[in-house]
Amino acid sequence: MGSSFGHTFRIATFGESHGGGVGVVVDGCPPRLPITVEEIQRDLDRRRPGQSKLTTPRQEADRAEILSGVFEGKTLGSPIGIVVRNEDARPTAYEHMKDIYRPSHADYTVDAKYGIRNWQGGGRASARETIGRVAAGAIARKLLQQVAGIEVLAWVKSVKDVQTEIDHAAVTLSAVEANPARCPDPAAAQRMIDAIDAARRAQDSLGGVVECVIRNAPPGLGVPVFDRIEADLAKAMLSLPASKGFEIGSGFAGTLLTGSQHNDPFVPGDGRPHTTTNRSGGVQGGITNGEPIIFRVAFKPTATISQAQQTVDNKLNPVTLEAQGRHDPCVLPRAVPMVEAMALLVMADHWLRQRTVDVL
Amino acid sequence: MGSSFGHTFRIATFGESHGGGVGVVVDGCPPRLPITVEEIQRDLDRRRPGQSKLTTPRQEADRAEILSGVFEGKTLGSPIGIVVRNEDARPTAYEHMKDIYRPSHADYTVDAKYGIRNWQGGGRASARETIGRVAAGAIARKLLQQVAGIEVLAWVKSVKDVQTEIDHAAVTLSAVEANPARCPDPAAAQRMIDAIDAARRAQDSLGGVVECVIRNAPPGLGVPVFDRIEADLAKAMLSLPASKGFEIGSGFAGTLLTGSQHNDPFVPGDGRPHTTTNRSGGVQGGITNGEPIIFRVAFKPTATISQAQQTVDNKLNPVTLEAQGRHDPCVLPRAVPMVEAMALLVMADHWLRQRTVDVL
Amino acid sequence: MGSSFGHTFRIATFGESHGGGVGVVVDGCPPRLPITVEEIQRDLDRRRPGQSKLTTPRQEADRAEILSGVFEGKTLGSPIGIVVRNEDARPTAYEHMKDIYRPSHADYTVDAKYGIRNWQGGGRASARETIGRVAAGAIARKLLQQVAGIEVLAWVKSVKDVQTEIDHAAVTLSAVEANPARCPDPAAAQRMIDAIDAARRAQDSLGGVVECVIRNAPPGLGVPVFDRIEADLAKAMLSLPASKGFEIGSGFAGTLLTGSQHNDPFVPGDGRPHTTTNRSGGVQGGITNGEPIIFRVAFKPTATISQAQQTVDNKLNPVTLEAQGRHDPCVLPRAVPMVEAMALLVMADHWLRQRTVDVL
Amino acid sequence: MGSSFGHTFRIATFGESHGGGVGVVVDGCPPRLPITVEEIQRDLDRRRPGQSKLTTPRQEADRAEILSGVFEGKTLGSPIGIVVRNEDARPTAYEHMKDIYRPSHADYTVDAKYGIRNWQGGGRASARETIGRVAAGAIARKLLQQVAGIEVLAWVKSVKDVQTEIDHAAVTLSAVEANPARCPDPAAAQRMIDAIDAARRAQDSLGGVVECVIRNAPPGLGVPVFDRIEADLAKAMLSLPASKGFEIGSGFAGTLLTGSQHNDPFVPGDGRPHTTTNRSGGVQGGITNGEPIIFRVAFKPTATISQAQQTVDNKLNPVTLEAQGRHDPCVLPRAVPMVEAMALLVMADHWLRQRTVDVL
Repeated sequence: MGSSFGHTFRIATFGESHGGGVGVVVDGCPPRLPITVEEIQRDLDRRRPGQSKLTTPRQEADRAEILSGVFEGKTLGSPIGIVVRNEDARPTAYEHMKDIYRPSHADYTVDAKYGIRNWQGGGRASARETIGRVAAGAIARKLLQQVAGIEVLAWVKSVKDVQTEIDHAAVTLSAVEANPARCPDPAAAQRMIDAIDAARRAQDSLGGVVECVIRNAPPGLGVPVFDRIEADLAKAMLSLPASKGFEIGSGFAGTLLTGSQHNDPFVPGDGRPHTTTNRSGGVQGGITNGEPIIFRVAFKPTATISQAQQTVDNKLNPVTLEAQGRHDPCVLPRAVPMVEAMALLVMADHWLRQRTVDVL
Repeated sequence: MGSSFGHTFRIATFGESHGGGVGVVVDGCPPRLPITVEEIQRDLDRRRPGQSKLTTPRQEADRAEILSGVFEGKTLGSPIGIVVRNEDARPTAYEHMKDIYRPSHADYTVDAKYGIRNWQGGGRASARETIGRVAAGAIARKLLQQVAGIEVLAWVKSVKDVQTEIDHAAVTLSAVEANPARCPDPAAAQRMIDAIDAARRAQDSLGGVVECVIRNAPPGLGVPVFDRIEADLAKAMLSLPASKGFEIGSGFAGTLLTGSQHNDPFVPGDGRPHTTTNRSGGVQGGITNGEPIIFRVAFKPTATISQAQQTVDNKLNPVTLEAQGRHDPCVLPRAVPMVEAMALLVMADHWLRQRTVDVL
Repeated sequence: MGSSFGHTFRIATFGESHGGGVGVVVDGCPPRLPITVEEIQRDLDRRRPGQSKLTTPRQEADRAEILSGVFEGKTLGSPIGIVVRNEDARPTAYEHMKDIYRPSHADYTVDAKYGIRNWQGGGRASARETIGRVAAGAIARKLLQQVAGIEVLAWVKSVKDVQTEIDHAAVTLSAVEANPARCPDPAAAQRMIDAIDAARRAQDSLGGVVECVIRNAPPGLGVPVFDRIEADLAKAMLSLPASKGFEIGSGFAGTLLTGSQHNDPFVPGDGRPHTTTNRSGGVQGGITNGEPIIFRVAFKPTATISQAQQTVDNKLNPVTLEAQGRHDPCVLPRAVPMVEAMALLVMADHWLRQRTVDVL
Repeated sequence: MGSSFGHTFRIATFGESHGGGVGVVVDGCPPRLPITVEEIQRDLDRRRPGQSKLTTPRQEADRAEILSGVFEGKTLGSPIGIVVRNEDARPTAYEHMKDIYRPSHADYTVDAKYGIRNWQGGGRASARETIGRVAAGAIARKLLQQVAGIEVLAWVKSVKDVQTEIDHAAVTLSAVEANPARCPDPAAAQRMIDAIDAARRAQDSLGGVVECVIRNAPPGLGVPVFDRIEADLAKAMLSLPASKGFEIGSGFAGTLLTGSQHNDPFVPGDGRPHTTTNRSGGVQGGITNGEPIIFRVAFKPTATISQAQQTVDNKLNPVTLEAQGRHDPCVLPRAVPMVEAMALLVMADHWLRQRTVDVL
């Protein structure tokens, strides 16, 4: 049951990093939505390793195949099954680590939970698992665009201590995609690239923060009390590999303000009240207020590093995990489409759910 | 559907701040668990307003009544229905605000979503709604204690810029309960109390951070990929009123480290690997590793302040929200049992779910 | 989790026959639906024992109280909590049966499942549990009436071998309610009453079949492949105490026809195809086709009889269950509002779910 | 959401009769269960058309491929993705029926619901959709066998008016598989085969009843009040294409008995009470009592017949649906593995759920 997400627009993902393939079943997508495999592939290509030297050196084609639910270019209303074959299977690359618990990976915890583990890679904990999410997110993106003009855009806000402030009202997809760091501030992007390169040379890895804006969400989305928009976004983001934190609007920094400083004053607007500030991050009482939804996600530095590390094996013997070959020194640029995908899934779900409230 | 939480240990809450009452139905609690209404009342009393001058001046008795599911002091395995009557209903206190959208409250968004609103108080967005959660959390606490010795303990880590570092291994419930700030560091607690008093006098409000430790969670809890422990905790916490952020283990600060600094080295332990540091916060790959689970929740300064504020009414006319009488200048101390309750619900759910994995 | 029903219009019931009370939480009812406690009480009164000498002699007032979710006569969109107090608690009446497993009751199976049992009555297996369902069904009835003119009407079709054929197009609520047998054929009703009276005198009990028609369901309701309308109706009906069978349209008798006899020919109609026969029972491929939905539910003879019976106690000793006082010799008349309630819940759920399909 | 089934052992199916393929994701299967693709294929082969002249003439290989969740012959605890490619795609075979609503098929209702339809066959309403269920059922079968020795066996009890009484205690899989009618009574089987042959020659079709026994289910499975075992079985069976009725134990015929005749007397047994009769069908109060679970499912005569039929097209013009080529005159033999699969899924789910009850 842990591989399903969403209430009305619902996905079930499957697949390990090694084995036949990975994929997703999207259940609840409305019928007659025009969708092509190219639209899905576009987001998959952004998620894919090997896009630049910044990311993991593994080359994966990650070609999506739609098995069901789409007919003559439109959704049928039935479940959309999508499969991506695993190609780059080199089990021998992992054989020497078969019994070793890599630090801050899921090797030990998967063993503790299941008593069995596909040691040929990261298994289900691999970032490869997110392929299904990103494919489903591309469908949610198309749906939200068609029915409501809702847009989701994410970018890298910081890599380690290289930070930048992005004007979320002005930022565009092309600005994000203009550099391999996926940071729309070119100067900051260059510093991030330099930092990542330095980390690679040091056989180390870096983390950072992804920021995301959701535009044009109508007022009224989100279902109190447990399925608040920010609650579902938080769950969505903390379900991504390597994520360690989530904040919306003013977030943790907002705790340093007083109520009179923090409250967002309402002023008359075009058919609805607007707020002059947006410390709420577009959500009040768990429900969208029509302002942009702004949130941030913290990703820890990648656990895979090329340095030798002390650890234990599954017999509890201390062992040295030997220095590895190339690794992905920073997951942040690839996390951007993952964050978008999960936000898109949350918004599609809640947009559809609101249809069952707007009745009388 | 938004008022249910949990998969196997599942609750459904109901009730507005005004009306007959609030309550909860707990479905999935195993049979034969000894439980008394006093054990439930104990946590409700910690949540209740009016415990000290620090909190809201409303006096609410909040007496729980168990309607079903418990027989001769033990759970039956059937749904446990618990009701708390509303007593302090003074609808006239809100009548002048009937048409006004209070800044950073849910007044406007509830109207936008539902087209109707119980203006006699905060409705479903009121902190009063958490009574059902806290009552259910007390049952989860008893279950976890009996079956696994799992303990959940939270405290106030910061109020505005008054911060402290708490040794989560040493902190006790009595230290937390020793002062009305629920901060186990007495010196910091006094500064927090002073800050809250000053805020009250200034007709303003303060936010802060609650920290929580979960002890004795066995390795193996959490269900990849969407029902990771940290994902469910994040959803649980962001579903609490006024929460704006969640982080686990190293959290946002962890993004400033490199991988070699951040990874938690494994060393042999008593029957399982232990880690020499705990930046993972007790969770790796979404699954508990047996170390303490540590997380933090950011709460914004309370939206209700006594100062006059500019805002609009539901006709989009600018209006001045007049200065109010006494208010609760800081929700943090009362948020402590709410955070605990939600963490307890997550852990009880996952402990039971693991029973369906440990089979062969 | 077993006490929740529905996906979008979702209920959670609680309560045993003895203890503080029984009730329901309705989550997902759209806002601004006019509803009064009297409308709920009306269906509860039809379900209540003691309406006539035909039914159980226990007198229960069963007064519903709405605790939340309704404000100034309209639903708020928040969960509707309804409680009915238990009044007729005479635990001593059951004390002599404390350790005895009554034949064809749930006494043994509840013990086997939970290892504990509220022996003061039927516990959760009591028909009293259906109070929450019937209360929720009354809200669903109002919703369906307002949004779509959908009507649900059930009646007693047979009691033991006393059978009748009812014209489902002509039958009315007043015809059903015109006699205590709830059979709209007065002659058959009298024979049913006589049979039930004879069974009571013989200290025995009778079963029978309830038939139900759902009118004005628009084409398109039902969600392939698992949430077919007939699948959800079947589950709903088989969840009622004492039910043993369900059939829709031609049902079991339809297996005696050939395909050319059984197929329902389509003819042009007013804006949609109509069928000249209705062996499909209003559902094709799990989806409503606009014709009336017709189904039947078999209820076994009530397990409680006044005769002495051989059985065992919980130590596996053979014992004689002594002859009892008065009992309810036939549950059929009271089962009518229960069948309606469950059908109403299914239809409300599916009507709302279709709102998430009719999008593009 | 309509394509998922189960709470803890949960499946999501996908796929139309035409398009890339059909499949299933099984989420919640415990780890370390030995399973091979051959064990899955065995049940798929029983479901497959073209096994004999009795069934549909379409030849489909239906080769299952396991994409994930199984490693070195054992389940990993992660979702098991299984795909079966569509091979026999002859869209032109359906082109002349593109705009025609076939009587008692889902053509019209699918159009009414979704406003779009894959006219190249039966789409999601095709029996081909059940491939995913049968594959998942094979895994459930293995699980139940390993953990509890639970067996599920179904057979054809009647074809039209050719009926037989089968001793469910004695019947074996080999007796069921001994003839193409899947009726373990050889004489009745021959009459069924003759009847089906006659129907084919008459360009007509036949329905009938499948009976099923579940052996060795321990007492205590089933979750009151909505997830009673018989409720979940009823939903499972009515979700199968062409099913029109379900009954358990005495079923509809049981309504002709009195309570004193119908009650199953308890007698002492080996560690638990046994019943001398089994009119309850192995379930009391929705919970298994340890006796065999017996139920029956009615399947209407197949809607596809070779005779010409009057109907309408999607412009509401009356049209004649021309006589077709060969068709499957009786779905009953192929329904046997479908019924077993759904029963296996229900039992696996409830067996696992009981693990969360047996705790204290």
